[in-house]
Amino acid sequence: MVGKFITFEGSDGSGKTSVLQEIVKLMQSQNNTDFILTREPGGNKISEEIRNVILDKSNQAMDARTEALLYAAARRQHLVETILPALAANQVVLCDRFVDSSLAYQGAGRDLGMQEVYEMNLFATDGLQPDLTIYFDLEPEVGLARIKGHRQDEVNRLDEESLHFYQKVHDAYVQLADQEQARIVVVDASQPFADVVADVVAILKAKSIL
Amino acid sequence: MVGKFITFEGSDGSGKTSVLQEIVKLMQSQNNTDFILTREPGGNKISEEIRNVILDKSNQAMDARTEALLYAAARRQHLVETILPALAANQVVLCDRFVDSSLAYQGAGRDLGMQEVYEMNLFATDGLQPDLTIYFDLEPEVGLARIKGHRQDEVNRLDEESLHFYQKVHDAYVQLADQEQARIVVVDASQPFADVVADVVAILKAKSIL
Repeated sequence: MVGKFITFEGSDGSGKTSVLQEIVKLMQSQNNTDFILTREPGGNKISEEIRNVILDKSNQAMDARTEALLYAAARRQHLVETILPALAANQVVLCDRFVDSSLAYQGAGRDLGMQEVYEMNLFATDGLQPDLTIYFDLEPEVGLARIKGHRQDEVNRLDEESLHFYQKVHDAYVQLADQEQARIVVVDASQPFADVVADVVAILKAKSIL
Repeated sequence: MVGKFITFEGSDGSGKTSVLQEIVKLMQSQNNTDFILTREPGGNKISEEIRNVILDKSNQAMDARTEALLYAAARRQHLVETILPALAANQVVLCDRFVDSSLAYQGAGRDLGMQEVYEMNLFATDGLQPDLTIYFDLEPEVGLARIKGHRQDEVNRLDEESLHFYQKVHDAYVQLADQEQARIVVVDASQPFADVVADVVAILKAKSIL
């Protein structure tokens, strides 16, 4: 692998996806085309089919371990079809969510255990780690309010979760950021949008991505 | 868990499914109703949907690790919806294939490594092991000839594999049976059908299942 693999993590409502769009605009304005922006399931047929099984509202009987395995399966296929080829072509890969999301959402949020979910995901990633992860930190109450206010149209089975769930997700992200300071950089996502963008730009410049 | 969990393993063409039907007839003739016969995906909606993704002939781009994770996801859901409730109700569960199939087919056949596939499957099974596994041993050449002769109508993506693949699968089963002699009992599946049935009946009687 010769490219750089950058992941963006955070709870729903943390604004990371909107910030990513600003980063892409900035890179395009610099005539930088050696990058891809992607997110699981990444547009490949197999991962999309897997994602449809996960998000199907009629699949209420889905066990939490089944869900975690399906996310890992979609992740694997996205890695093989999109991320690894881009890295091999020396591109920067900007990826909206990766393994940390499973550790926070399934490992902590659904109480499967972060270590167990991490080890299972090693099978999916074959050990590939992001070179850099930017974590958008936001109190769960604020994130949940943003979701309810701005994305009512996107409510699916996964959004019907309680504040308690988001509290566990938040605590997990904070713990991960604390444990992996060499990889994970924390951004205060409660700031005004322009300030969050500025912080992310500064981080990417410091790492010679911008 | 108070029931007994019995799995039936072997390469395609080993005759285990036909033998299982004879065992079921025998149990019914003894008015034994405290058992279930099942196989992955087990008829539940979620596992069936996952299996459809695996067997879709248009999904040629599927990575071997993606496939192994999908099998584990379908296995987990089948365990939760079918096997665990039956064991909790003190039933005998006769299951056509379980984790050993993934170790042989994905671990050895697709060269992912049996130990790696085993550890990933621990996430799916949460450590549940069969009380007894009956392995139908058959030379891969014989099994493949049986498939080609008798099941042309069932050819799918998974059947389009070479003899080399089935050789690796066979070697893996033999290795597992050697390593886990307390759990796995080997039956010579090259015998006439009635003799294979008789051997399986004898094994189940010795374990007080029949």
